[in-house]
Amino acid sequence: MNPIHPPRRYLMGPGPSPVEPSVLAAMAKPVLGHLDPAFISIMDETSAALREVFQTTNQLTFPVSGTGSAGAEAAVVNMVEPGDRVVVGVCGVFGARLAEMCRRAGGVVTEVQAPWGQPVPTEQIAEAVKKRGAKVVGIVHAETSTGVRQPVEEIRQAIGDDPILIVDAVTSLGGIEVDVDSWGIDVCFSGTQKCLSVPPGLAPITFSPRAEWKLETRSTPVQSWYLDAKLLRSYWEDGEVRRAYHHTAPISMIYGLHEGLRIVLNEGLDARWARHHDAGRFLRNALAERGFEMIAADGYRLPQLTAVRLPKGVEDGLRAALLHEFDIEVGGGLGEFAGKAWRIGLMGLGARRDHALRLIQALDALM
Amino acid sequence: MNPIHPPRRYLMGPGPSPVEPSVLAAMAKPVLGHLDPAFISIMDETSAALREVFQTTNQLTFPVSGTGSAGAEAAVVNMVEPGDRVVVGVCGVFGARLAEMCRRAGGVVTEVQAPWGQPVPTEQIAEAVKKRGAKVVGIVHAETSTGVRQPVEEIRQAIGDDPILIVDAVTSLGGIEVDVDSWGIDVCFSGTQKCLSVPPGLAPITFSPRAEWKLETRSTPVQSWYLDAKLLRSYWEDGEVRRAYHHTAPISMIYGLHEGLRIVLNEGLDARWARHHDAGRFLRNALAERGFEMIAADGYRLPQLTAVRLPKGVEDGLRAALLHEFDIEVGGGLGEFAGKAWRIGLMGLGARRDHALRLIQALDALM
Repeated sequence: MNPIHPPRRYLMGPGPSPVEPSVLAAMAKPVLGHLDPAFISIMDETSAALREVFQTTNQLTFPVSGTGSAGAEAAVVNMVEPGDRVVVGVCGVFGARLAEMCRRAGGVVTEVQAPWGQPVPTEQIAEAVKKRGAKVVGIVHAETSTGVRQPVEEIRQAIGDDPILIVDAVTSLGGIEVDVDSWGIDVCFSGTQKCLSVPPGLAPITFSPRAEWKLETRSTPVQSWYLDAKLLRSYWEDGEVRRAYHHTAPISMIYGLHEGLRIVLNEGLDARWARHHDAGRFLRNALAERGFEMIAADGYRLPQLTAVRLPKGVEDGLRAALLHEFDIEVGGGLGEFAGKAWRIGLMGLGARRDHALRLIQALDALM
Repeated sequence: MNPIHPPRRYLMGPGPSPVEPSVLAAMAKPVLGHLDPAFISIMDETSAALREVFQTTNQLTFPVSGTGSAGAEAAVVNMVEPGDRVVVGVCGVFGARLAEMCRRAGGVVTEVQAPWGQPVPTEQIAEAVKKRGAKVVGIVHAETSTGVRQPVEEIRQAIGDDPILIVDAVTSLGGIEVDVDSWGIDVCFSGTQKCLSVPPGLAPITFSPRAEWKLETRSTPVQSWYLDAKLLRSYWEDGEVRRAYHHTAPISMIYGLHEGLRIVLNEGLDARWARHHDAGRFLRNALAERGFEMIAADGYRLPQLTAVRLPKGVEDGLRAALLHEFDIEVGGGLGEFAGKAWRIGLMGLGARRDHALRLIQALDALM
């Protein structure tokens, strides 16, 4: 068994995204105990920075000790009780996953489907909510399997005040606007390895006061002890028991997230979103010129994740050549697009024209 | 928001333990995609090394993408179905936690209790299993709240072949003998931040062929999608779908675990256990001379985690002086020992007489 020597790749898949050297350096700093006052300061700063990035004043805001999918599961198991009626918008792999998690939590789930490449129509979600008397609505803001942006900002008004609104912002946070408070989101979760440009391993999450009320008034225990938000709150917030031990926090990953968020806030959210839009548009144009067809409908295309159908003569196997000859990773298609599409990410640190250009030049050499 | 500057601590609490610089350096290496062939080699080597450390030939052996408690939950939700009768041995916080997780998974749980400081008598576990017709038995090998070693090696013979045996080896793996195959354990889980000397964030786990059979023959879906072992298996093993994407693996943490396991295997398990025994005995003797009383019964004391009652005149507040004046972290008491006991860890890299001596000298200066 030899020490690892991972090659340097240009990460242009659907995540992980490129990581700033200072983030990796932060992760290599001396490990503190999870109850050390010096670590608790870092936790508090991390929560405060997450509130800025989520654009929320929600007190209960922290990183779940798992990857983005753990964030999804944390949102679901805390908000859905057995028998609850739930409406989930599904137009790709990640909506389907959210619906499956809701079923496993005992929810009675109605999926509102849309063709892959389209967002789920807001009015169909609202109709399903009304018809079913749904208590919980789940929706994916940035569908990583198709590159579609769901207009989440329209949903609260359409469904009314009552339902708990869960939003998957795994691929959107830090790349395009996510405005938790203005959009009336109750639980919003993300992942570190997309537009935040931190390695995978943590899932930022935020719970509105109404979501916290739901925690208090549930009639059944949360099925997951590990993801029980009331137990996690007693560690992440000062309460009656100051910083009650729940589980040993992933110290080094939180160091990395702290540094990643510092970089995001130094750049500024507006500038960061503009940079993602610019890089995404540049890439789309260059790909279209070469015969790649966008999967996402016009008007709903994510700048940070471009899913394309392969033109005639381009095989999925070309991805291996990109990886081995050019050290460029792009993602394959998922679900109905397996073998037929690519997913190209320009996320976080990678959202730059020069990254896009590197891929285009490699394609031109190979095609 | 400034970059972090965590102070260097001598980590002598119940975890996290000191980390070898090469482990931190590994975590700072370039991030690979979770489906990159170069990363898949690292996964395979990590699984193979975990098999050696667990002393098992179990195929399904990998790190869960969460901390030790996520490992506990993964063991429970995969093995316990609603209505299953479960017996859990409880003589401290972590046994109680395992029982609670089994209840949340729908198990009908019988707790076999023992006073804190004692192991749970094997014959009482066997009696409860027989009386209740239990399908699953859960036990903690190294009870981190009391410093007690549970003689897990006796349990399989006492309970017979039928029940699934789940063992919490969070604080034992890499510090004292854990012999998954010889002891007849079906599911064994651990954490990275104890005797493996890797930062917290992953939970090594192994499933016996019989446990895999249970996965195949369950009549209900696993309540957690994130921790569903059959879905995780399709990523960690080559199957019909080669390396099917489940969730984005925590790449950098797996780099760290790979390096930590390399160090463990280079040292050799026997040598590593002997080092833990030596350091633990040295510390116990020195503490006893100073009036600290061991909580764990003689014959069942963990060398890597020593829980002591404070002598007259020593207040729990002295821990703050140890931290701030000497940069030494020791842990406080949990549960019934809160404020009355300390938990001192000499784990992994920290299992050395010179670490113990540093603490003793600081105590002598302060007391």
